[in-house]
Amino acid sequence: MDCKIDGKLSLLLQKTSIDGHSISENSRNASSIPPTLSLSPKKCLKASPARPGQKSIGSNCKGTKLILKTPKGTRDYHPPEMTVRRKVFDKILDVFHMHGAVEIETPVFELKEVLTGKYGEDSKLIYDLEDQGGEILSLRYDLTVPFARYVAQNRIGNISRYHIARVYRRDNPAMTKGRYREFYQCDFDIAGSYDQMLPDAECVQVIHQVLSSLDLGDFVIKVNHRKLLDGVFGACGVPSDKFRPICSAVDKLDKSPWSEVRREMVDEKGLEADVADRIGEYVKLNGKQDMLDALKSDERLKNNEDAQAAIKELELLLHYTSLLECDASLLLDMSLARGLDYYTGVIYEAILKENQNGEDADSGPTSKKIKKKQEGEEEDEEGGAVGSVAGGGRYDNLVGMFDAKKRTVPCVGVSFGIERLFTIQERKIRQQGIKIRSSCTSVLVVGAGKGMLEPRLALCALLHKSGIRAETSRKMNPKFLGQLQHAEEHGIPVVVGVGESEVQEGVVNVRCTATRQETQVPRVQLVAHLQQLLPTLEKL
Amino acid sequence: MDCKIDGKLSLLLQKTSIDGHSISENSRNASSIPPTLSLSPKKCLKASPARPGQKSIGSNCKGTKLILKTPKGTRDYHPPEMTVRRKVFDKILDVFHMHGAVEIETPVFELKEVLTGKYGEDSKLIYDLEDQGGEILSLRYDLTVPFARYVAQNRIGNISRYHIARVYRRDNPAMTKGRYREFYQCDFDIAGSYDQMLPDAECVQVIHQVLSSLDLGDFVIKVNHRKLLDGVFGACGVPSDKFRPICSAVDKLDKSPWSEVRREMVDEKGLEADVADRIGEYVKLNGKQDMLDALKSDERLKNNEDAQAAIKELELLLHYTSLLECDASLLLDMSLARGLDYYTGVIYEAILKENQNGEDADSGPTSKKIKKKQEGEEEDEEGGAVGSVAGGGRYDNLVGMFDAKKRTVPCVGVSFGIERLFTIQERKIRQQGIKIRSSCTSVLVVGAGKGMLEPRLALCALLHKSGIRAETSRKMNPKFLGQLQHAEEHGIPVVVGVGESEVQEGVVNVRCTATRQETQVPRVQLVAHLQQLLPTLEKL
Repeated sequence: MDCKIDGKLSLLLQKTSIDGHSISENSRNASSIPPTLSLSPKKCLKASPARPGQKSIGSNCKGTKLILKTPKGTRDYHPPEMTVRRKVFDKILDVFHMHGAVEIETPVFELKEVLTGKYGEDSKLIYDLEDQGGEILSLRYDLTVPFARYVAQNRIGNISRYHIARVYRRDNPAMTKGRYREFYQCDFDIAGSYDQMLPDAECVQVIHQVLSSLDLGDFVIKVNHRKLLDGVFGACGVPSDKFRPICSAVDKLDKSPWSEVRREMVDEKGLEADVADRIGEYVKLNGKQDMLDALKSDERLKNNEDAQAAIKELELLLHYTSLLECDASLLLDMSLARGLDYYTGVIYEAILKENQNGEDADSGPTSKKIKKKQEGEEEDEEGGAVGSVAGGGRYDNLVGMFDAKKRTVPCVGVSFGIERLFTIQERKIRQQGIKIRSSCTSVLVVGAGKGMLEPRLALCALLHKSGIRAETSRKMNPKFLGQLQHAEEHGIPVVVGVGESEVQEGVVNVRCTATRQETQVPRVQLVAHLQQLLPTLEKL
Repeated sequence: MDCKIDGKLSLLLQKTSIDGHSISENSRNASSIPPTLSLSPKKCLKASPARPGQKSIGSNCKGTKLILKTPKGTRDYHPPEMTVRRKVFDKILDVFHMHGAVEIETPVFELKEVLTGKYGEDSKLIYDLEDQGGEILSLRYDLTVPFARYVAQNRIGNISRYHIARVYRRDNPAMTKGRYREFYQCDFDIAGSYDQMLPDAECVQVIHQVLSSLDLGDFVIKVNHRKLLDGVFGACGVPSDKFRPICSAVDKLDKSPWSEVRREMVDEKGLEADVADRIGEYVKLNGKQDMLDALKSDERLKNNEDAQAAIKELELLLHYTSLLECDASLLLDMSLARGLDYYTGVIYEAILKENQNGEDADSGPTSKKIKKKQEGEEEDEEGGAVGSVAGGGRYDNLVGMFDAKKRTVPCVGVSFGIERLFTIQERKIRQQGIKIRSSCTSVLVVGAGKGMLEPRLALCALLHKSGIRAETSRKMNPKFLGQLQHAEEHGIPVVVGVGESEVQEGVVNVRCTATRQETQVPRVQLVAHLQQLLPTLEKL
């Protein structure tokens, strides 16, 4: 059963059809509506009028009503969306498999202690489970920390693994932009001791290959280096205990203008104004070898070991990515900082540049900043910008945090923000008016006239035994034309029909849905006939 | 990178290799060890000596130690296990697709109120999230209730959907039997108004097809009917308000002997002793049409409407499953009750009969009962029995519980207990000594002599562009023989080699790993050459 996708699929969908039935207006948006009830298992629910598009439920709690919805920041995935998602996953997996990666899976929750102290200021966004007696657990916040725990616990020396799973953040959701509280991450990581910058270049290559294969238009892969940032901070006069807080401030440059970030550095984090101004000169730099050349000869950085080491690594990265033919979209950008505490080397982030047919309003940092200032939080809900779709970097000390003897395993990886990629794909499909088949039935077995149920079931059993995907109506005596219409509406390529005379003669009618051409085939030859016919019809 | 699977893979694995490195002993069993720490985010951890195979972690909390493990009742999946699992999923999906099913996905948690009042006595096993301000949430306990919520919320009239996802139960885990607190369910459900028993027979067919295709040996699909049970209860003199509690007692017959179930009915649930004895006569019945014939003419049931209606439905089910050629393993069994409250009609459960090469000690209900009595809880931890691998039934009122106007949608479905199927598959692989490839690299690009990094990277880029899965070492100058050995150990079918002279002449050496045969190919013809060669080598 497939769903017609017209101009209104996706999150803004008004009406679509699943298995021939309609989904109510706004039902998909229900979860973006702020919660109006404070529920508690002990006290009873407060009654509240249902909003349009929300459904009331007869609660078990003294007849008061509960709004029927998914939790805030989460959504159901409908069949056409699942189909889009499977296709996106398949393309990403193709790339991961190119790089010899193997798959692992970890539990959705971890001991709370495993997550503690890994995420800096973002730790407040972690979902905790209730203490119901036993261990204290939290839902995973990303796939990187569980991976490091996995490597340490299993004493793994090297592995290239991928992991596709949902993670949980009690963040402010922006559903239309693909920002959820429950969302998929698609991670590729290389753990192990290898030669400098080879795994790092491979991660950049993976980003390049995934985004190219998804055909999302132009993108830029911004690259920076934590040691270069630290070198700059040191050279500008930042005390070393303030490196991480100042790095957090720089991280906000993708959302806030420099004036605001400078204010945070000076007013909140106690930096001297002239130190902040010196940092301001560096974070506006970007480029490729030209930028590195400028930094190499920079007076302040000349004798800074961290900075010089990072510059050498970045030069090597440029060289390798050029050999791997994935440097076209690469841009060294000194304003890239990335929020998480655990990065120790190269960091990167991929951003879609293209305005997706006028819908993605991410028209560069300047206009974005202004918009943000004018509209505040509303921009997230109203705007269509998607922004960063992948990010990652090197984290050489994280595995060691889990090891009693501090034995560590150097790691580098990349995480794709899959929900955002889905959102873009769904928009593309909507704009192109593509019809998506959510089921993959090859044959509909239909009966002409009454009393055909038994031959229909027997035919289905026969076809299933040969691995042919065959359905038949679950009604005793469905209408003949209704059955044919079902095949046409759902894109089922072949109809096999039986009536009383066919049963008597031991034949069936094979009808090609697209051409409406019919052939009579002896029942004993049906499987062989279909095995020849179907591959020609199911190409695309 | 693949993992050698010898006699010790799976849950009892002692030592295996991921990407050439070893996993420590017991690491996979760590999560079955009872927690020895009472962790709390507020109070500090108590120190505890690490057990063998567990790793200590330098805690963030005043230097005390935390045992490095996954939460109780959960596990990590390693690459060879993921490969097995993908194969099991693929076979199950093939069957679901035969029946025209579409896929949906719902959030991992629901508003707590959605789950309330659906699971009877098992509700105490639900995982609650901490109230961190906002909605009160619980992790899903199964996929059926979220599906009913989905159908009601989206006002869907009919759908055949599947959903593969993990569910959460704070149950007593028995890891060696494949019973976890976090485990996959694989659900197929048909919602909508159709003709009697057609969707029900299709669900039995799905069970039959899945278990046959997984090649697990003999199985039995036990079938019963809630209305038949209710009819028997009524006819034996059970007051109607005790139908559900008495049904819960009957449900325990798969684990406890009749004497114990009878005691529960009489002592705990206040049934008259002679009423219980009359029930005892019925619940030992099983068979096919013969059993139905006996019940039809049974004096007590003759005028019982519920029972007679159920008998008619079961006769129809036998007829349809015979037409669908999936009745060979079907057994009507009056002792089958199924615990959940929401069933309203046909119920079923599939049990593996075969002793899996002497490891699955499920040697029938009688001996199991005795074992249970003798060994108590320990049987779960020590025994290898797998038991029920699929179950389900008809639940016509569940969607209505979510609808303000009580509009309901009749549903019937089946859920596969995937972890148990994995456990069996892993045992089979271990017993057969099969080597599993966890990665799917086609080509290893190797260098002969020093300074070959650049040509190697360029060759990888070239092959990737044509969609050929090619890897190369992440070392500058890896040893030549070590690279060849890597290809042999990991089953990479083709090695492409370059040395200085090959670079100068514009050629490469193509070596077939299995035959060790080498051919020299001009670099410009490499892609075409491999596109012809690889399909012949990658057949199994």
